[in-house]
Amino acid sequence: MTADDRQGERMRLARVAWDLIARTGGEPSAEMLAHEAGISRHRLQAVFPDESDLFEAVAEIWFAPLNAMMEEVLASDLPVNRKLYEFFARRFVHVRDLFRADPVFYRTMCDLGTRHFEHARTNIDLADHYLCELIAEAQDAGHFAGLEIDRALTLINQMVACYTVPDLLPLIEHRLSEDKLAAIVDTMFAGLSARDGGSQGVKGLRAA
Amino acid sequence: MTADDRQGERMRLARVAWDLIARTGGEPSAEMLAHEAGISRHRLQAVFPDESDLFEAVAEIWFAPLNAMMEEVLASDLPVNRKLYEFFARRFVHVRDLFRADPVFYRTMCDLGTRHFEHARTNIDLADHYLCELIAEAQDAGHFAGLEIDRALTLINQMVACYTVPDLLPLIEHRLSEDKLAAIVDTMFAGLSARDGGSQGVKGLRAA
Repeated sequence: MTADDRQGERMRLARVAWDLIARTGGEPSAEMLAHEAGISRHRLQAVFPDESDLFEAVAEIWFAPLNAMMEEVLASDLPVNRKLYEFFARRFVHVRDLFRADPVFYRTMCDLGTRHFEHARTNIDLADHYLCELIAEAQDAGHFAGLEIDRALTLINQMVACYTVPDLLPLIEHRLSEDKLAAIVDTMFAGLSARDGGSQGVKGLRAA
Repeated sequence: MTADDRQGERMRLARVAWDLIARTGGEPSAEMLAHEAGISRHRLQAVFPDESDLFEAVAEIWFAPLNAMMEEVLASDLPVNRKLYEFFARRFVHVRDLFRADPVFYRTMCDLGTRHFEHARTNIDLADHYLCELIAEAQDAGHFAGLEIDRALTLINQMVACYTVPDLLPLIEHRLSEDKLAAIVDTMFAGLSARDGGSQGVKGLRAA
């Protein structure tokens, strides 16, 4: 069996697991998955030694279109504020569609993501990497003046968390919209910088 | 028994429930609570006809200091950007202290809040009411130009959600800090307005 064959079987089984989750609303047992895929428990065990390996493959299905969206935005010739909006908005709309199509499936996937966070983490790190590229591009164009890239990264991520944290969506989906996300991105481009605007005050400072 | 007596007994029992949650890490059964409080199940039932009534009283204990903080900030003579920062920061620090002191207790309270969201809702509505006052004050001073108050409210709430949504705190507490919150509030005062900065583009517009 070649590496390609192995990867092919791995993703075929992950797709079977994905469909089982969608159909049953819960996480499939190894028995269910082997039966549904028409293979032995022994074979399943060889492909996915434990639940975490299976979820890693399922996570690849979840994140593949999201990663493609980010790459497409980065490769585009949009102005950088348009890029930053599309970077978040396309993924938000895609994930919201998944939630709206099947809230039970969506929540099960969130639970799996929480339990096997190490695999979600890889993809979050990739999103952060791409976002850093956009921040550098924005700074080249004169935005986010004076901020370290890591500082801009964490502030931007926090300001758009409602649109990116999967577990939040079921709680606040009715309050989220593309035009509010755009207003938040506009606010960043108009106001985010290293300048101290004074909202924290001088508590803690002492005279020399 | 006067209304004051009844409210006194209600809050005494809620405090017993609070302490039981803190000690056991879980939600107390009616049996446990009656036993701990030294009253009959019948008496407990008279004070709290169902679990939701009990949680309403426990929620009063949770929210009382938070509501006091908001009122203190509103009544202060700080500049409005300082007020907005303190409005969020004081409650964030208080809630983070509760989480750090006892993460298990904190999560149990979040679960209770999710299950009896109608009581949390009352307090969220109060926070929104106070925030609207601050937004009006900021607009009088020339900030957030052109925005409807409800629009400013939802945008501000979304931009600081990491610092206010209780269920998020355990996931991202290590990334949150007062100075980042201040940078977000500074960004709002520097950049939040009704002006279309163009990040959403003109997709969907058609020529006449």
